[in-house]
Amino acid sequence: MLITGDDIPLIALGGAFLATGGGGDTLLGEIIAQAQVRAVGSVRLEPLDQFTSDDLIVAIGGVGSPTIMQEKPMNGREAGWALSALEVVLGKSASAIIAFEAGGMNALVPFGIAAERGLPVVDADGMGRAFPELQMESFSIYGVSATPMAMAAELGDQMVVSAARSPKLAEKLVRHFSVTAGGGQCISAEHVMDGATAQRVAVPGTISLCLRIGKLIRHYGSNIPGFVQALKKELCPTHYGAVEMLVSGKVVDLTRETRGGYDYATVKLMPHDANDHDTDEISIMVKNEYLLALRGGKPIATTPDLICLLDSETGLPITAETLRYGQRVHMIGIGAPALMRTECALKVVAPRNFGFDHDYIPIEALYPGPAKK
Amino acid sequence: MLITGDDIPLIALGGAFLATGGGGDTLLGEIIAQAQVRAVGSVRLEPLDQFTSDDLIVAIGGVGSPTIMQEKPMNGREAGWALSALEVVLGKSASAIIAFEAGGMNALVPFGIAAERGLPVVDADGMGRAFPELQMESFSIYGVSATPMAMAAELGDQMVVSAARSPKLAEKLVRHFSVTAGGGQCISAEHVMDGATAQRVAVPGTISLCLRIGKLIRHYGSNIPGFVQALKKELCPTHYGAVEMLVSGKVVDLTRETRGGYDYATVKLMPHDANDHDTDEISIMVKNEYLLALRGGKPIATTPDLICLLDSETGLPITAETLRYGQRVHMIGIGAPALMRTECALKVVAPRNFGFDHDYIPIEALYPGPAKK
Repeated sequence: MLITGDDIPLIALGGAFLATGGGGDTLLGEIIAQAQVRAVGSVRLEPLDQFTSDDLIVAIGGVGSPTIMQEKPMNGREAGWALSALEVVLGKSASAIIAFEAGGMNALVPFGIAAERGLPVVDADGMGRAFPELQMESFSIYGVSATPMAMAAELGDQMVVSAARSPKLAEKLVRHFSVTAGGGQCISAEHVMDGATAQRVAVPGTISLCLRIGKLIRHYGSNIPGFVQALKKELCPTHYGAVEMLVSGKVVDLTRETRGGYDYATVKLMPHDANDHDTDEISIMVKNEYLLALRGGKPIATTPDLICLLDSETGLPITAETLRYGQRVHMIGIGAPALMRTECALKVVAPRNFGFDHDYIPIEALYPGPAKK
Repeated sequence: MLITGDDIPLIALGGAFLATGGGGDTLLGEIIAQAQVRAVGSVRLEPLDQFTSDDLIVAIGGVGSPTIMQEKPMNGREAGWALSALEVVLGKSASAIIAFEAGGMNALVPFGIAAERGLPVVDADGMGRAFPELQMESFSIYGVSATPMAMAAELGDQMVVSAARSPKLAEKLVRHFSVTAGGGQCISAEHVMDGATAQRVAVPGTISLCLRIGKLIRHYGSNIPGFVQALKKELCPTHYGAVEMLVSGKVVDLTRETRGGYDYATVKLMPHDANDHDTDEISIMVKNEYLLALRGGKPIATTPDLICLLDSETGLPITAETLRYGQRVHMIGIGAPALMRTECALKVVAPRNFGFDHDYIPIEALYPGPAKK
């Protein structure tokens, strides 16, 4: 399908929803990507199964603190610089761009660079959501080397990690570059793979899903129950699991800090139906993304399942850095795509990988009744 | 001239002297470089003025904490990996190797990689001594871009800084790689330049000078006054300044720590001729190198002039990380090479650049009498 400038805000909206609070504010990324797509008319979004072993697919996206991305616009040329630096090392040119996360700004970055280069975007990503670290990409989880990977920051600084013994080391190097050269943000081009490999390791259909979710959000507005019903139908034939309307309530406490290039926060929600403040208070733990939700200390949704917050008044997804005290929100839980729930994936994306003393409990196990429908 | 395996320990010895306490322990570097040179018989050491604008000269050396370099042998293949990673980005091959510092291990690293590649080593370097940071290389001071620069660590991790807006940023990125990927050490290939440029920006003759100083040290042993006399003659026709026998004494206090990839220390010496402990006690401030010497709080030698310590019993140079309590030492001061004393150079290598509240005072101004001879 052809993606036009008009589709970009809808993909941004759906991407903001799948970002589970992370992935960065979409407005600045939207403006940049929309301008780049409009300059060429449209960008092709091709199904994952169209790509073959002759393709050279490069994953491109932003690395850094969403808070900083909201405060400081990017240059817009970072993705081009990063891709060119990577191609010099590869000695060949990319034939398609893939998002490494279908979340927030990172669902959009591929369209800007694809427009600039006249390349298609693969309708897939490496997370089916957003996560804060490189080794959490399905590409890494299923054995694609992150390196060579190239990164560029707004003043033109460019770096290539030619070889790294682990995705965690690559993550540390790009994170340091993001902080040191980019003041907390940069664009990274990485996980070079052919089409056959992408079919094995990528979460399929997620970019067109962003577009469809964006349309649903716009259509239903503050009718959040209506949106959730439609979302269930939309996700039914996909690799995602059950959809649960978890709670609606009010933000009663919020602590956050930006540290080491990440945004950390703890959000407290009081449900509208609360009987007892101690047992009903909801805590949401954030490292760039909403990763763990507890009610009275007991898990009600756990990473890698998606925890999505919508503003009760507007129906719009809320990113962690814009969440505010007193805000009324609806919290929705979604079973993670199959690729992100395997034993292999849970070694890197379960709650303990983020320092939380909880195990992953699939949303279908937490809500056995409603999940069966 | 041809450098053989037998010359390597002598260059190491002279390099340890010019390292002013830094540059790393030479023993491990010596073993690696000697083996590599012996494997091919010899390596050509060519005068700086032999190189032309057709040459592609690459500066190669180790980056990290000398303490760690002494504890943990390198793999030996790091320089080859770094150079190859750089050549991929350059799209062409190096024709000669230059040391970025004629100090300690870094006077030797070029011979290992030159042997491996069958290339000549340039008889020059980027400091005429050792300094802890990249922007302190004469190459950077006189405007040669440090980037593209490539680095490799012992387990095969490789990174290229393709573009950096300042040498300080490049320094931060390589230092982080050194700590994160190499556990505190790596080899860097950087400051790519042609021969005409090298003639403008490099300190000439310093590698053959290391060899000659190494021979003098071996010849004079514990006859340090004899060594100093011979050194004065040796340095007279070079770009270096005056040579001063500053003091002989005993180490009475020593504090050190390794922090952020650097070795920091403060050394207290009591001169053998001390009359008053307060006014005669010598303090030497160290950041990898001996940078500032005070007697009773007043400067007696200041960076970029060289402060060299010799063990009074053996006559051997003492690197900062091996200095020990109770050790008897001779301290020699040497005027820095002309290129390192210009207004331009003093903006980056004077005492204040290391956080010391003192200005540079040329050794000839501190010792107007003896320096005139």
